[in-house]
Amino acid sequence: MLKERGVARIAVLTVGDEILSGDITDSNFPAIASAVTSLGFVVSEHRTVGDDTERIAGAIRDLSRYSDAVIITGGLGPTSDDVTRQSVSLATGRELELREDLADIIRNYFEALNRKMTEDNLQQAYLPVGARPIPPAGGTAPGFAVEEEAMIFALPGVPREMVAMLKSTVVPDLERAFKGGGASVTRNIMTFGAGESEVASLLGDLIGESPVGYAFLALAGPITVKLTASALTAEEAARLIDEEQEKVKKRLGSLIYSTDGRTMEEVVGELLRESSMTISIAESCTGGLVCSHITNVPGSSDYFLGGVVSYSMGSKINILGIPDEALSEGAVSKLAAEAMAKAVRLLFRSDLGVAVTGVAGPGTGGESKPVGTVCLGLAHNDGVESFEVKLPGDRKLIRSIASLGALNAVRMHIQGHNRLV
Amino acid sequence: MLKERGVARIAVLTVGDEILSGDITDSNFPAIASAVTSLGFVVSEHRTVGDDTERIAGAIRDLSRYSDAVIITGGLGPTSDDVTRQSVSLATGRELELREDLADIIRNYFEALNRKMTEDNLQQAYLPVGARPIPPAGGTAPGFAVEEEAMIFALPGVPREMVAMLKSTVVPDLERAFKGGGASVTRNIMTFGAGESEVASLLGDLIGESPVGYAFLALAGPITVKLTASALTAEEAARLIDEEQEKVKKRLGSLIYSTDGRTMEEVVGELLRESSMTISIAESCTGGLVCSHITNVPGSSDYFLGGVVSYSMGSKINILGIPDEALSEGAVSKLAAEAMAKAVRLLFRSDLGVAVTGVAGPGTGGESKPVGTVCLGLAHNDGVESFEVKLPGDRKLIRSIASLGALNAVRMHIQGHNRLV
Repeated sequence: MLKERGVARIAVLTVGDEILSGDITDSNFPAIASAVTSLGFVVSEHRTVGDDTERIAGAIRDLSRYSDAVIITGGLGPTSDDVTRQSVSLATGRELELREDLADIIRNYFEALNRKMTEDNLQQAYLPVGARPIPPAGGTAPGFAVEEEAMIFALPGVPREMVAMLKSTVVPDLERAFKGGGASVTRNIMTFGAGESEVASLLGDLIGESPVGYAFLALAGPITVKLTASALTAEEAARLIDEEQEKVKKRLGSLIYSTDGRTMEEVVGELLRESSMTISIAESCTGGLVCSHITNVPGSSDYFLGGVVSYSMGSKINILGIPDEALSEGAVSKLAAEAMAKAVRLLFRSDLGVAVTGVAGPGTGGESKPVGTVCLGLAHNDGVESFEVKLPGDRKLIRSIASLGALNAVRMHIQGHNRLV
Repeated sequence: MLKERGVARIAVLTVGDEILSGDITDSNFPAIASAVTSLGFVVSEHRTVGDDTERIAGAIRDLSRYSDAVIITGGLGPTSDDVTRQSVSLATGRELELREDLADIIRNYFEALNRKMTEDNLQQAYLPVGARPIPPAGGTAPGFAVEEEAMIFALPGVPREMVAMLKSTVVPDLERAFKGGGASVTRNIMTFGAGESEVASLLGDLIGESPVGYAFLALAGPITVKLTASALTAEEAARLIDEEQEKVKKRLGSLIYSTDGRTMEEVVGELLRESSMTISIAESCTGGLVCSHITNVPGSSDYFLGGVVSYSMGSKINILGIPDEALSEGAVSKLAAEAMAKAVRLLFRSDLGVAVTGVAGPGTGGESKPVGTVCLGLAHNDGVESFEVKLPGDRKLIRSIASLGALNAVRMHIQGHNRLV
């Protein structure tokens, strides 16, 4: 029985001072969130608390109230700051009892490694009365499951052990308990070239009109439209999403670069591969970022021939071999971007030549244009195009958006769209 | 007044469906945790909840009860799923009112970028009555602060804007309110060139001997030794740390590249600047990553002349102009790395020439060497040096460690250490 109508809601509770202090990044939560959403369920809340029995027990009680299951990670080790067992005991009113079967497993573990077992290690064999043990997965820490107001799972904090128990026990248990109660499916529609509010206003009346939920994720440059649909089955939810995606496509058109999770560089890479084109890059303000994006993709050597990072004025002239006149309007100009694009295309003998030149800041570095001015050039078989944009943000953001903008211009060109950005 | 004896306790509340679903990794929490611990305060709890007014308001009330401050991130955007303003209003009983000063800032932002403002954007100018606005930091989202049972800060979810407000407002406010209750100070000693267990065994007996705590953070390549000291005053804690750092330095020597938070590229940049040397880069497997690291640093055009990303074999020969014989042992060889380093130094007429060539995988791309093989070359006034390493991990990790390794070789050379890696 689900607590709320619709899909199962799963809470995650991370235990550990080292996570709260920021010393260690919690890699368990993303793994659990991914497993839960793959099941078509929803993560209802995530809490991280320190190694404190009262606080952990309080969180377990809270989360149990409005979630169908609570997955706890951490605090199952053998030392005195590992208090998850005591906390579940406190939250559920079940005493801890020594489980001889678990004690044997732990004793055998140390024997096999020829290492001395301490009394502390036996702490790990105590479980709340009636709990179902989950055998240790590679270490000495058993996990356990208890059925209360919600299903409670306690898993070790060591990611490798956690993931093993998640797969072996938690996912099948959740599936058995809550499948058939409904499913939720999401899809990310990734766009580039318009701001969050512009994308939202293009979609306007679609939002709220259909049973599909909308959310917007603004990253550095791209805006993602996230669609979420809930239905009795995953198939039905996917059908709702497919229908909605068609409507969104009609509104956003060429702003959309990906609907299947592929990154901009993956999309551009496939377009280049499909059209059997090669590419080379000349970049100044992005300083190697466009090249490093492209080469993130395995196999990119099939279409990426290389690049020149022309950071000094001299290198633009000498290495790229662009004429003095091309810099007559300054190194940050459409004229210069066009000359760089043509020059790098010639140099590498590639089908496409892309150029980025701009002012990333914080200072203008002697340029007459303000910080954030970026000129992009694209040279191809039929000539050369260029445009100038004014980007917001600091050095890092300007470099990041300019790099994606350069790749997006390649996408727009190959896909035959008129507006390049 | 602190709620508990000792140090101030700060709670963090992350808002956003996209974080709960695991679609986006929460990079704000680590930044806040680091700022809080740098102040000598403690993170009391971290919660992540979805875009749900009731749930957010409930979390604010809960966390306010036993924390001295609550820092909220996310949900301040212009779309209908941004409900943090409403949630703080609900939790505190303060109505939302339009702030004309903020409305003006938002209008000006759009005017300056020559973009159309929508009515939605003005939602961001509504704050709870009596709230102190924190002006937008690069975007359109103002943050705000309210004093209730705890100090409540609401910051945007966009990391860049969040960090700006954290520094400009939250940290100084927390410092004013809670300093004097005791302090804990940490220091990160960053090393490159040895694994975690090697660093730990070099420190050996130091650990546990002093009142200073040790922790090891293994990132992609660098190993950070984190020292933590607690005392009545920050000055006293810092003194303990300084003493311990001297001991660590004696053991780790040239493995240490930074003790003051500077990145590898910042350290290398300053070394180049101090020694009035210029540099150029030739890279293949890292595909632009080394150049993009160097140019992360503002003002890097003072010493970085440029680079060539020679991804195709042809470009190594034609653009870099290295002789055929240099590739006789394959493109991934010390011989090739040396030739590339010399060639790029000549091409850019720089004092130093750095080259990286390797097999990043997943396939070997026809190379005879196994995935993870990387050759680094360094050409300078007195000749050329090179070495070959075998790196662990996947494509991303190999590229990342190789890039840092190239910069580290430059550091070792300028600092006069013998072993380059």
